[in-house]
Amino acid sequence: MYRVGIVDTTFARYDMASAAMEELKNLCTVRFERRTVPGIKNLPVECKRLLDEGCDVVMAFGMPGAAPIDKQCAHEASLGLIWVQLLTNKHVIEVFVFEDEASSDEELAELADRRAREHAVNLYRLLFKPEELTKLAGTGQREGLPDAGPLRR
Amino acid sequence: MYRVGIVDTTFARYDMASAAMEELKNLCTVRFERRTVPGIKNLPVECKRLLDEGCDVVMAFGMPGAAPIDKQCAHEASLGLIWVQLLTNKHVIEVFVFEDEASSDEELAELADRRAREHAVNLYRLLFKPEELTKLAGTGQREGLPDAGPLRR
Amino acid sequence: MYRVGIVDTTFARYDMASAAMEELKNLCTVRFERRTVPGIKNLPVECKRLLDEGCDVVMAFGMPGAAPIDKQCAHEASLGLIWVQLLTNKHVIEVFVFEDEASSDEELAELADRRAREHAVNLYRLLFKPEELTKLAGTGQREGLPDAGPLRR
Amino acid sequence: MYRVGIVDTTFARYDMASAAMEELKNLCTVRFERRTVPGIKNLPVECKRLLDEGCDVVMAFGMPGAAPIDKQCAHEASLGLIWVQLLTNKHVIEVFVFEDEASSDEELAELADRRAREHAVNLYRLLFKPEELTKLAGTGQREGLPDAGPLRR
Amino acid sequence: MYRVGIVDTTFARYDMASAAMEELKNLCTVRFERRTVPGIKNLPVECKRLLDEGCDVVMAFGMPGAAPIDKQCAHEASLGLIWVQLLTNKHVIEVFVFEDEASSDEELAELADRRAREHAVNLYRLLFKPEELTKLAGTGQREGLPDAGPLRR
Repeated sequence: MYRVGIVDTTFARYDMASAAMEELKNLCTVRFERRTVPGIKNLPVECKRLLDEGCDVVMAFGMPGAAPIDKQCAHEASLGLIWVQLLTNKHVIEVFVFEDEASSDEELAELADRRAREHAVNLYRLLFKPEELTKLAGTGQREGLPDAGPLRR
Repeated sequence: MYRVGIVDTTFARYDMASAAMEELKNLCTVRFERRTVPGIKNLPVECKRLLDEGCDVVMAFGMPGAAPIDKQCAHEASLGLIWVQLLTNKHVIEVFVFEDEASSDEELAELADRRAREHAVNLYRLLFKPEELTKLAGTGQREGLPDAGPLRR
Repeated sequence: MYRVGIVDTTFARYDMASAAMEELKNLCTVRFERRTVPGIKNLPVECKRLLDEGCDVVMAFGMPGAAPIDKQCAHEASLGLIWVQLLTNKHVIEVFVFEDEASSDEELAELADRRAREHAVNLYRLLFKPEELTKLAGTGQREGLPDAGPLRR
Repeated sequence: MYRVGIVDTTFARYDMASAAMEELKNLCTVRFERRTVPGIKNLPVECKRLLDEGCDVVMAFGMPGAAPIDKQCAHEASLGLIWVQLLTNKHVIEVFVFEDEASSDEELAELADRRAREHAVNLYRLLFKPEELTKLAGTGQREGLPDAGPLRR
Repeated sequence: MYRVGIVDTTFARYDMASAAMEELKNLCTVRFERRTVPGIKNLPVECKRLLDEGCDVVMAFGMPGAAPIDKQCAHEASLGLIWVQLLTNKHVIEVFVFEDEASSDEELAELADRRAREHAVNLYRLLFKPEELTKLAGTGQREGLPDAGPLRR
């Protein structure tokens, strides 16, 4: 059975991890390993620990603020998550929602919930149905938002 | 026979991978290994896996959006692709098309198609005709756009 | 007994390290290892040394100025702290306070003091009560500032 | 005999590599190893390969465009070239000319030619005359442009 | 006897290295190893070489220009210097003076001289008097400029 790591933060304002786990449970049977860290700069090392301990893939959830410094923190965390993948040769699905992606708290919560669930589907495909991802290659998928769709020539 | 890795995303809005593979098949005989990931931040690790599994070179296709945060994501992915190259001592041909490089969907699709094909030619030269690349050194080649050409003194 | 590294700078304008150690002493019994470096770009290597010497976790305190170049320095230090974590598989709690986060010296000192103490609680939870962090996942915790709270749907 | 790697791109609009090699041949006898890659993001790995194969030092030539995205690409390549140096403990002389450094094609070609030649002299000094570099320490040397000169107190 | 590496550039417009060495000689007896490279992007590898050859600590001197591209180069060099520290577990004291930190050449030279000397004192403390650094923790020290001083609550 695949082991799926789940790492989130106390900084985020929505429990994306639970939404994603619920979605995954509907799709497949995997073993979860969940950890919570204070902020996004601690996500990379916690993801790496889980992958080193045997997880096959990890989802990393974060919800950066809207200020420039928050974007910078998210950038640092994202680079860290890419290093983690290269150090472990395993995927980390980064699920970040920026506070300025929505215009109200309610809309932001909806976006976070949908993005978490749609990335859970991505993880499911990576593990069980990689050929489905290739069928969707270049089709403009957007997690949590309306798909952009493929370009017409 | 050379093994060529092909990695693209479901986020992109054009199937650049197929265009590049078609172009390559017209130029030479290689063995393809194709994988699709959700977004560009998962490109680096998938490229690394393919290179570790024996691919000689990989093409990485991405189509970032036009917003500042999309540029940041592309920057993170690009750094990751450079690390992959340094960790494997093999080339990754990054084929990114930014959504704001064209003014219509049709134009963007054309650009993506041409860039993919012209980078396929680059890959062909890297593998089979490195001396052709040196003949073109400093001549202002542009993939998918009119060449800038060499400077006149 | 856990060993906790404490690294701060002579550049900072408030002794956050002492505040955090005081807070931690009220919560638990750990052994401290304290080092001070001139500026934030020397924080990463000093944290790494302490972790290599056996510390289980390190707090890294910095107080960058308000100019763009100070933000750049903080960015470099933050990336360094993420690498340290990935190289050691241990957590570094970054406690940075930016000079433009407050409008007076007094307010800035208060913020620095509170942030140091609240991150000390985070460290305590990471070491002794990880399940408390997971209970707080997605609840919008803010260190040194009023919590943002969870989003309502 | 020292082995000098030379790596340039088909993207650049001037053959800086030939200018630098010509200059070096006038100064000393070394063995050249020349490679050409499509764009600057492939410079780092090609430099690393040459250094791993025994080159003592490499010159990396690039000519980024004037748009923000070109600056970003150059930034990524520059970071890659620094990693290459740290991974090999050898020098890479980065010779980049930005398209917005000159106001005409002719001026840009002149700048590229002079910068390539003056960096060739730097490489010569690194290999054969390190004491000459120390004599020039803090004197405001500028490659391809008028020297800034030392500050007067 | 401690071995102190000194690395500077021909690009800089002031001989900060000599100022720092003079200052250090007044404070303690150490053995110097001095090297000069063309520009700041070659500082990291030269520092790493000296540390690998047995230096206990290195000072890296640079004087970036005022244009955005110069800030970017300094950023790249600074990241490199942080990696050097993490790869060697030793300190590099970065002594950078930006050309736009002063309004005249004379003032800039004064700043460079003072910053070099005050960082030499930092290095002395790191090697011989680490407890003095901790006494100064959080007191707002500024190298080459008036100290900001500790915040009053």
